[in-house]
Amino acid sequence: MHFGDRVCGLVDRKQSRVVAGLDPRVDSLPPFLRPRNPQDPTQVCKAFLELNKLVIDAVEDLAVAVKPQLAFYEAYGQHGIACLEATNRYAHHAGLVVICDAKRNDIGPTAEAYARAFLERSPADGWGVFCDALTVNPYFGSDGILPFVNLAAAQDKGLFVLVKTSNPSSSDLQDVDTEDGPLYLKIARFVHSLAAGTRGQSGYSFVGAVVGGTYRDASSQLRDALPNSIFLVPGFGAQGGTAEDIAACFDECGHGALVSSSRGITGRSHQCLSAGEAHGEIRRQALQMRDQLNEVVSVNRG
Amino acid sequence: MHFGDRVCGLVDRKQSRVVAGLDPRVDSLPPFLRPRNPQDPTQVCKAFLELNKLVIDAVEDLAVAVKPQLAFYEAYGQHGIACLEATNRYAHHAGLVVICDAKRNDIGPTAEAYARAFLERSPADGWGVFCDALTVNPYFGSDGILPFVNLAAAQDKGLFVLVKTSNPSSSDLQDVDTEDGPLYLKIARFVHSLAAGTRGQSGYSFVGAVVGGTYRDASSQLRDALPNSIFLVPGFGAQGGTAEDIAACFDECGHGALVSSSRGITGRSHQCLSAGEAHGEIRRQALQMRDQLNEVVSVNRG
Repeated sequence: MHFGDRVCGLVDRKQSRVVAGLDPRVDSLPPFLRPRNPQDPTQVCKAFLELNKLVIDAVEDLAVAVKPQLAFYEAYGQHGIACLEATNRYAHHAGLVVICDAKRNDIGPTAEAYARAFLERSPADGWGVFCDALTVNPYFGSDGILPFVNLAAAQDKGLFVLVKTSNPSSSDLQDVDTEDGPLYLKIARFVHSLAAGTRGQSGYSFVGAVVGGTYRDASSQLRDALPNSIFLVPGFGAQGGTAEDIAACFDECGHGALVSSSRGITGRSHQCLSAGEAHGEIRRQALQMRDQLNEVVSVNRG
Repeated sequence: MHFGDRVCGLVDRKQSRVVAGLDPRVDSLPPFLRPRNPQDPTQVCKAFLELNKLVIDAVEDLAVAVKPQLAFYEAYGQHGIACLEATNRYAHHAGLVVICDAKRNDIGPTAEAYARAFLERSPADGWGVFCDALTVNPYFGSDGILPFVNLAAAQDKGLFVLVKTSNPSSSDLQDVDTEDGPLYLKIARFVHSLAAGTRGQSGYSFVGAVVGGTYRDASSQLRDALPNSIFLVPGFGAQGGTAEDIAACFDECGHGALVSSSRGITGRSHQCLSAGEAHGEIRRQALQMRDQLNEVVSVNRG
């Protein structure tokens, strides 16, 4: 199914716009999962997989997607990637969309190889990193994006192109004044040129955009500039974005944005003494986030 | 030793500015390394490691560094990363600088995790991806670069920040007119602000820049803007850059740039019927590239 339609369908069915970030760190593992030897990558990655499964079990009906951040897996080399592969398959079988937050970027044959690395596998494959969608960086211009678009189109997968990120120094480059307005708007126009022709029945394309949740004016400007792109909105909770900040990212039907949080959902599980307690705590946080976002969406609808 | 000094010392000792790209692909393996089952990632990655060792053995005295491009390893998941880990250790023991061409980018704690993934390991560690230097993408602004700079400083490693890439559509973003000139020049000024205060005795910092070899005017403008940064110059050979195009990247001492080629060095080994023949062919290509670059450098000096 077309990725845009699939996401809109899941949002309606689950009445949720939540993406649970899966960013495991050794120093935020709950005590019952802490490895005996935190220097041993095999033990650490085994604990990461257990934690990820616990999060997935806790949010499977409350979230639309999970978003593993590649850096936290790459930090453990081949062991980390093995953990990512197993995590993604587990999340898929739980009915969650898997978004690999890898922000890959390169040109020509290299971009093709990255696209294959992330977008070619199906969940049934016995090896490799399966995911449903990937974040990509537009610094190389169109040469660096089109190979991802082509493979995503062929495989019914999704992309989220970095447009305006949530960090303070995103203004260094992304807000630079050009003759067509701030640079992020120029990039948005490029993303729109890809999205407009690749819409599904929902009106949304499989080519989405990463739009930080911390800049209200930019979000609202970008919602207008990108009517066919689903936004992936990081920065909820720990990075300072509130549901109100994020309101502008949704359309009147409550579609058009998925909002991710990692520490906001899993942060408190750090102190839980059992898997059952952590499950409850993660569920509580995910439920709260889901409801906060639904509240905003219903106000939007008027 | 300070990364800038180490590179300048190796350039002088080896009288070479060559970086051999290690971008293995299943369809360019020489016949004697082709896996029985090209769908089996274990067999493919075993062949990749054999090919990489063959390239490293052939160029160890002719090249300063090797540059594995991450995409080609990630395409095989955990097996590919295991191959990368072994490749990088092998290259280190052959006396080559290892530059991971990963173009990583993110903010805050995520950039720290990426920095750890690539810059924290030493060759003696029994696991993880060891490398001497990493390419990074500046799209997030300073927040996305400083965590890499901090860890590289602590570990005597190097960085190459994307400034002006070699592909045709690099102009989409990188050449955008700003009130301070083209965007790439603005980024160069940011990179220079990091490099000026982190110079070694050679005058070169461990914070370098990726500068495509296909745009003569930009190269020469960037050489002036970045007097303390070593350039990593892709695009030699297959991407169309010639030694003359690249001349402007060097200073009068023949320092200041490393030039990479992948297909230009290994491309012809594809048809070799034995390891010995491939070794000879790769050596011939690397020697020719080394001499072409040295010729340009000596004309520069004249």
